[in-house]
Amino acid sequence: MEEFRLCTIEEMEAATDRLLETAAKVGADTYQSRLAHQNPHCGFGDKGTCCRICRMGPCRITPKEPRGICGCDAHGIVGRNFLRFTAGGAATHSDHGRNIVDTLYHAEPGGAYQVKDPEKLIRIAKEWGVETEGRDIYDLCKEVAYMGLEEYGKVFGTQRWLSRAPKHTQELWAKAGVEPRAIDKEISCSMHMTHMGNSSLAEALVRQSFRAGMSDGWGGSMAGTEFSDVLFGTPKPVDTTANLGVMKKENVNIVVHGHDPALSELICEYCEDPEMLELAKSVGAEGITVSGVCCTANEVAMRRGVPMVGNFLQQENVVLTGCCEAIVVDVQCIFPALGPLSKCFHTKFITTSPICRMPDSDFIEFSVEDAAENAKNIVKTAVLNFKNRKPELIHIPDLVTEATVGYSVEAIKKQLNVVTNSVVDPQDTLKPLVDCIKSGVVKGAVAMVGCNNPRVRPDTAHIGLMKKLIANGIVIVASGCSAQAAARAGLMDKKAKDLCNSGLKRVCELADIPPVLHMGSCVDISRMMILVSDLAKEAGCNISQLPVLGCAPEWMSEKAVSIGNYVVATGIETYLGVEPGVSGSSEVTDLLTNGVRDWFEAAYTVETDIDKLGDMMVEKIKEKRAALGI
Amino acid sequence: MEEFRLCTIEEMEAATDRLLETAAKVGADTYQSRLAHQNPHCGFGDKGTCCRICRMGPCRITPKEPRGICGCDAHGIVGRNFLRFTAGGAATHSDHGRNIVDTLYHAEPGGAYQVKDPEKLIRIAKEWGVETEGRDIYDLCKEVAYMGLEEYGKVFGTQRWLSRAPKHTQELWAKAGVEPRAIDKEISCSMHMTHMGNSSLAEALVRQSFRAGMSDGWGGSMAGTEFSDVLFGTPKPVDTTANLGVMKKENVNIVVHGHDPALSELICEYCEDPEMLELAKSVGAEGITVSGVCCTANEVAMRRGVPMVGNFLQQENVVLTGCCEAIVVDVQCIFPALGPLSKCFHTKFITTSPICRMPDSDFIEFSVEDAAENAKNIVKTAVLNFKNRKPELIHIPDLVTEATVGYSVEAIKKQLNVVTNSVVDPQDTLKPLVDCIKSGVVKGAVAMVGCNNPRVRPDTAHIGLMKKLIANGIVIVASGCSAQAAARAGLMDKKAKDLCNSGLKRVCELADIPPVLHMGSCVDISRMMILVSDLAKEAGCNISQLPVLGCAPEWMSEKAVSIGNYVVATGIETYLGVEPGVSGSSEVTDLLTNGVRDWFEAAYTVETDIDKLGDMMVEKIKEKRAALGI
Repeated sequence: MEEFRLCTIEEMEAATDRLLETAAKVGADTYQSRLAHQNPHCGFGDKGTCCRICRMGPCRITPKEPRGICGCDAHGIVGRNFLRFTAGGAATHSDHGRNIVDTLYHAEPGGAYQVKDPEKLIRIAKEWGVETEGRDIYDLCKEVAYMGLEEYGKVFGTQRWLSRAPKHTQELWAKAGVEPRAIDKEISCSMHMTHMGNSSLAEALVRQSFRAGMSDGWGGSMAGTEFSDVLFGTPKPVDTTANLGVMKKENVNIVVHGHDPALSELICEYCEDPEMLELAKSVGAEGITVSGVCCTANEVAMRRGVPMVGNFLQQENVVLTGCCEAIVVDVQCIFPALGPLSKCFHTKFITTSPICRMPDSDFIEFSVEDAAENAKNIVKTAVLNFKNRKPELIHIPDLVTEATVGYSVEAIKKQLNVVTNSVVDPQDTLKPLVDCIKSGVVKGAVAMVGCNNPRVRPDTAHIGLMKKLIANGIVIVASGCSAQAAARAGLMDKKAKDLCNSGLKRVCELADIPPVLHMGSCVDISRMMILVSDLAKEAGCNISQLPVLGCAPEWMSEKAVSIGNYVVATGIETYLGVEPGVSGSSEVTDLLTNGVRDWFEAAYTVETDIDKLGDMMVEKIKEKRAALGI
Repeated sequence: MEEFRLCTIEEMEAATDRLLETAAKVGADTYQSRLAHQNPHCGFGDKGTCCRICRMGPCRITPKEPRGICGCDAHGIVGRNFLRFTAGGAATHSDHGRNIVDTLYHAEPGGAYQVKDPEKLIRIAKEWGVETEGRDIYDLCKEVAYMGLEEYGKVFGTQRWLSRAPKHTQELWAKAGVEPRAIDKEISCSMHMTHMGNSSLAEALVRQSFRAGMSDGWGGSMAGTEFSDVLFGTPKPVDTTANLGVMKKENVNIVVHGHDPALSELICEYCEDPEMLELAKSVGAEGITVSGVCCTANEVAMRRGVPMVGNFLQQENVVLTGCCEAIVVDVQCIFPALGPLSKCFHTKFITTSPICRMPDSDFIEFSVEDAAENAKNIVKTAVLNFKNRKPELIHIPDLVTEATVGYSVEAIKKQLNVVTNSVVDPQDTLKPLVDCIKSGVVKGAVAMVGCNNPRVRPDTAHIGLMKKLIANGIVIVASGCSAQAAARAGLMDKKAKDLCNSGLKRVCELADIPPVLHMGSCVDISRMMILVSDLAKEAGCNISQLPVLGCAPEWMSEKAVSIGNYVVATGIETYLGVEPGVSGSSEVTDLLTNGVRDWFEAAYTVETDIDKLGDMMVEKIKEKRAALGI
């Protein structure tokens, strides 16, 4: 067994610096150089006080003119921008979910897509009141998937998944008027409300922002997660590796990037195909290495142990190694920069989705009907590109960490069985975790999520906060780019228990888990919602009473705000390290950081001093424990 | 019979100036004063090269930095902004349509809402393959309305109304990939495509912009129009008046403003209620005058002959008369300025929709279930406010014009019957119009639509262009604020025939119509789509071959761009007097003004010199006639 090896920020930055030398050599620009020219950012955009919603403007709020041409003030403008920002995120997550449900609808025995977790399908079917007895699984699959698709556009009613939450939470939602109706309807209504000459009342705009967020987390994202599990299997613990060094110089390197596992799952499958491996050998490679960037990495790591080469701000680095035969992308968080950058190398930049069309890419449309053929075509294109490498540009940084990932809610419950007496204790429950929290062996839990953002020194906030929290006995559940930061730093290595306080260390040893549990991609934050719901039910208290917090210290995307909104609405105090673009309105700021607590028993805390942010979380966990008398 | 009286721009402006003196007296600001402080507009926003889609930015394209932090270039940024702009408009129109269909769904015999045009309902039911024989009309209504609501969220398939277009047009749509699926789905997909890290290819973004526009014009807007007709009656010619002078000093003045006739229809009804009239007398008024602003004005003018007090940029003037007891608004194009402005007067600013919540307003929620009671409550509030007028602030400009409005497609066909021989000629067709165009008595038709925008001297473009066009023998169909500009200028007076060339004048006389035909509100541009479709079928040519153009010379809202997109996609060359915020991208500009012609046989022409714009249209009509050999 190897020595436990953490990877420091400095090592990661040195690796990046070395790759930037290659960029300079080929004359490619990178986000670092573009950022230098974009600073300082426009102050109006930054504060949310620029309005481009009609063509009388653009208007900007200034001391001299506190209202736009139509008379809208800063609170209305900031509120509208915030609602549109959330709606963008909710639509994006949910449309990803829709594609998964649609893929499930087309699953068939022996097809490119099959039902890999029939048990989970049956569980959902029962939850939705569908007859399951004696049903053919693909017949059932079609019915449930169709119902799943209907959640996006049904004429009446609210989201089915809401009933998974504790009664008290459901009552808060009803009272606050944020129960989401059909997902797409919430998006359309959000756009309507923010159209010129509609809502300018901050409270109404913020309320709809939460409803839109709810349509994501308790709607589209939850569908994405649950039905991805049905299609591709529910994750369970699996060992893998992370960081740029997972790429292999001697192999064909295919990097999958984006979010939708419907693409990456099949790519991974074909990378193991004997015919493809044979082809790889025939072009002089030893084999094929597929690795992931962004949430696609999380998806295939969670289910297949595919290595995670990097998170959001690493995507250009992957190409800069000179060893990337193809970077294959589906949707979201793809830098358009990959087009021109890949042209400086032999790398094929392959786009696959009509949702994400980019210049300077090879577009190989990926459709559910021809998925197998599309995937094969893509893998073949990559393999045949191996011989086009430019030897003088090759450099893979020698950075690899070990990680154990795959902690779905189901997997966590299973893992907790190891600390129970299977003869007398209930199995597959969160009771052991509740007991640990009550006894104080585990002080609480923080969900660390979200992106990278160059406004924060990349990954420092994720890694720094996690280290601080686990040292204080707080277990981490992580997803998205935050999870990858953890993996790349070595915090998902079970040996990272040594960084915990004695209580949490003991729990990690007994339960055989790392202190940072990888729960998946960004849509999988819905797993966390189910986890806290079950935890509250098990503990017999409200979600807002649990010593559980959310944190997105380096977020950047609209999806992150949509997530934040449903996490807060679920009753979880949420900590942001990047201000959400609302500082131009005291009303909107006060609602988000304070006022919504009246609706949800939780709100946002924004603090760009990351160290302070960590201290505040530790303090809040203590407060919550004290309030519970534990 | 009175002398024909045109009202000039100068008279209108003098009236406004007089009202601005009152504004100055009470210390209220108006759009004119706010505009002065907002000029010059931000150049990045103006050109579409500012990106606020993620929180790494905002980013701005400059000569020094041609890409944002993610690497997106000007074409991607402008394209994304354009798509979001369209999606905002499409969502807004369509959600208005949804509210109408939902209202229809709740219609019941003897209820606040009833089926006023059962014939039209039956026609639509048959078109949609619903059994109508022997059905109770409200039973049928429920079924058809439910189907209408399903168009917003159905899982599979495209919009039902598409089949109304000529075969050739439908084929173009299919080939271009712009047949809209469920309306809300197109909105969500548009938001997804424009999320950080998705499409940056101008062509893909522009294509989806047209699909989103199509979901409006051949989806939500058409539903709005068709089902409004079923609910409130299909418009037929009716005489009315226009301009600020329609308000009566001695009466209680209630101004309805917004878009959704579900509110304004009931307000109008209760204003005629004997109990309310009695109440008005009891507070010292002679009666109740209800008049309309914006598209609400169009709705109630078309169906009830309610006078049109003003269009978009007149909304503050209405309050400045000091005689407005209540300005009652539903959704869209409402100045938030009405809140603080109304506080300077006795005026009640009454908001009614959860979609349009505004500070400094009295919110009386208007719901389909309690509509009658809500409407009565609103009218009563207004009447009781009569006694609170401040006499020193009262001034109603003495400007009134006559107008004949109400030209639905059905009404136009009926009107054309007067020039046929009812014994031998087919009735209720567009054949007489086709004959007039073929013979050259009418040279062609222009659809004049859209808003006011202070970027253009208000109403000058609408009125100037109409005068030029009718003088050239081109008949006008108008809607929205453009129609109101015409009415306020006197161009909807049948006597305005005197401004036409001899051919058009003769047609106006024979058919007993004004040269500018009011077809309704902005959603009613769907009427124009049906009109051109029927015209092309009748003439046996493609829509793009007809000497028919679209024009929005003073547009400002997202809805206007959505409209423009579906008008162009329908094969109608469309002329804009305000640049659509895409000048920062040569690719997007070229697609809109040229490239999309390959898809739709039509494109945009942008020209801010309004006189030139008019000349170009006259020229284009000539070209189209020449190409047809007529």
